[in-house]
Amino acid sequence: MSDRTYAILGTGALGGFYGARLQKAGLDVHFLLKSDYEQVNKYGLVVESKDGDFTLPKVHAYNDVEKMPRCDVVVVALKTTQNHLLPKMLPSVVKDDGVVLVLQNGLGVEEEVAEIVGNVTVSGGLCFLCSNKVGLGHIHHLDYGQIVLSEYTPNYQPAGITEMMQQIANDFESAEISIELAEDLLLARWKKLVWNIPYNGLSVILNARTDELMAYSYTRQLVEQLMYEVAAGAKSYGRIISDRFIQTMLDYTVKMKPYRPSMKIDYDEHRPLEVEAIFGKPLQKAQAKGVNLVQISCLYHQLKFLDARGKEGGC
Amino acid sequence: MSDRTYAILGTGALGGFYGARLQKAGLDVHFLLKSDYEQVNKYGLVVESKDGDFTLPKVHAYNDVEKMPRCDVVVVALKTTQNHLLPKMLPSVVKDDGVVLVLQNGLGVEEEVAEIVGNVTVSGGLCFLCSNKVGLGHIHHLDYGQIVLSEYTPNYQPAGITEMMQQIANDFESAEISIELAEDLLLARWKKLVWNIPYNGLSVILNARTDELMAYSYTRQLVEQLMYEVAAGAKSYGRIISDRFIQTMLDYTVKMKPYRPSMKIDYDEHRPLEVEAIFGKPLQKAQAKGVNLVQISCLYHQLKFLDARGKEGGC
Repeated sequence: MSDRTYAILGTGALGGFYGARLQKAGLDVHFLLKSDYEQVNKYGLVVESKDGDFTLPKVHAYNDVEKMPRCDVVVVALKTTQNHLLPKMLPSVVKDDGVVLVLQNGLGVEEEVAEIVGNVTVSGGLCFLCSNKVGLGHIHHLDYGQIVLSEYTPNYQPAGITEMMQQIANDFESAEISIELAEDLLLARWKKLVWNIPYNGLSVILNARTDELMAYSYTRQLVEQLMYEVAAGAKSYGRIISDRFIQTMLDYTVKMKPYRPSMKIDYDEHRPLEVEAIFGKPLQKAQAKGVNLVQISCLYHQLKFLDARGKEGGC
Repeated sequence: MSDRTYAILGTGALGGFYGARLQKAGLDVHFLLKSDYEQVNKYGLVVESKDGDFTLPKVHAYNDVEKMPRCDVVVVALKTTQNHLLPKMLPSVVKDDGVVLVLQNGLGVEEEVAEIVGNVTVSGGLCFLCSNKVGLGHIHHLDYGQIVLSEYTPNYQPAGITEMMQQIANDFESAEISIELAEDLLLARWKKLVWNIPYNGLSVILNARTDELMAYSYTRQLVEQLMYEVAAGAKSYGRIISDRFIQTMLDYTVKMKPYRPSMKIDYDEHRPLEVEAIFGKPLQKAQAKGVNLVQISCLYHQLKFLDARGKEGGC
């Protein structure tokens, strides 16, 4: 059994699920909470899961990052819309020889985290997880759960497979979470965007589930065109995403159960949308290389409008 | 007083308004109706208008184009989604030396009409009209009403100002409808698309009025980008739309009263959308010249999805 300690920053559908699984496997886990703090401090966490329900009656719960112990692995499981809090949170909670593991969507967060934490190792994880928070301290895990894990190095130079990555992978696998180690974090992030950009964006803009988007030739074509634009963005950084990968994503989505992507759930729940991380940053990154992702830009502007109007309660 | 006879194909918000004004001015007008036929045949037409309300207790109403007399000027005031009916309608209602006047949005309809009617003159009119049908045979004219009139020639070669155009203009002006004669129908149609493409499309996709689209920088930018794409489409046919024209359209829309464009009204009323005429045709036309209007294509695919799903009662 590993004696690495874990901090979970953001105990929601994702952080709560992975953190609870790690604790259930015997690891020492510390949860940062906001609105759910009182409930979870008293009654712990409840996880309903297709892999088996379980309850953790007692967890280490905190409502203030300053009260948390320094941990070996700090999991950033906030929505990216909360990332302005990271400069205040991270320095006090991560050990000097620890790791920050960013389990968020989008591009560029590891760079920002590396600036905050200096010499601490930074890793990124791409989560393929269907999970919702259905009540205070109550998580419903619907499907999947795999993480693609990769280490960050300055300018996203491929880091290879490091000892630290393997140790974290062992911890997650002891918690029955499937881990794939990837040598190139930036490639992994662009590949995840191949799915996230079309489905998150269009599900919000067109008020549609994945199955509806795939049932009509017009949106199916648009999804595919957007995927090829993501591949063009990746290519501007020398990362090659194959046609076959794109076709696999399309086929995989056709076979999926009807699904509301995370941004659609956020929109329906009147929460801020992760537009900058998922759309803004990839657009900027490609633009910096002289590549203009025109249709993604169209979605970006539409989503920024919907997000801004939503905040004003106008819709 | 002119003795030209007019047929109005499609007695809705637009055809009903112009036709009623022409009859009020003393012209001989024949109205084709569908759902409103019984009402209008018995009680005539009611026009509420900012320029003064009026009623025409008796009009020539028809529910079958075959029963209509051949007319000098046949006004096509159907939605373009009904244009599959034109090959059956036009040959029986237009005089051999008559004119078909297409008062529709979008591109390319005059070409189709010219193929149907052979040697009959075809003209196009761009209507700047805010008008709704609020009940059976009951039209509410809110604002504007001007028509830009231009004659069609094969391949949209500029036709100059013809005698026939001036005669029709005289009739409309006797009905207090402001007419501008344009030498180049294709330029006039692309210029109208500068407004129609962004505002009709985005109002439906984002469920927004014109004032909301202009109040947020994201959509204001997207509107402007779409306008420049329309200008690029026009340029592929040698028609130049100036930056100044685009800025005028933006400024004009900011100053307009909050407005639901016609496609938004159609969508809200669960009617078919004029996506092919306003988006599909301009895309095809530009594509034929090797110009890819990428953001307009994005809107086209989104609108086709919304239109198709709407028809299935899925939304």
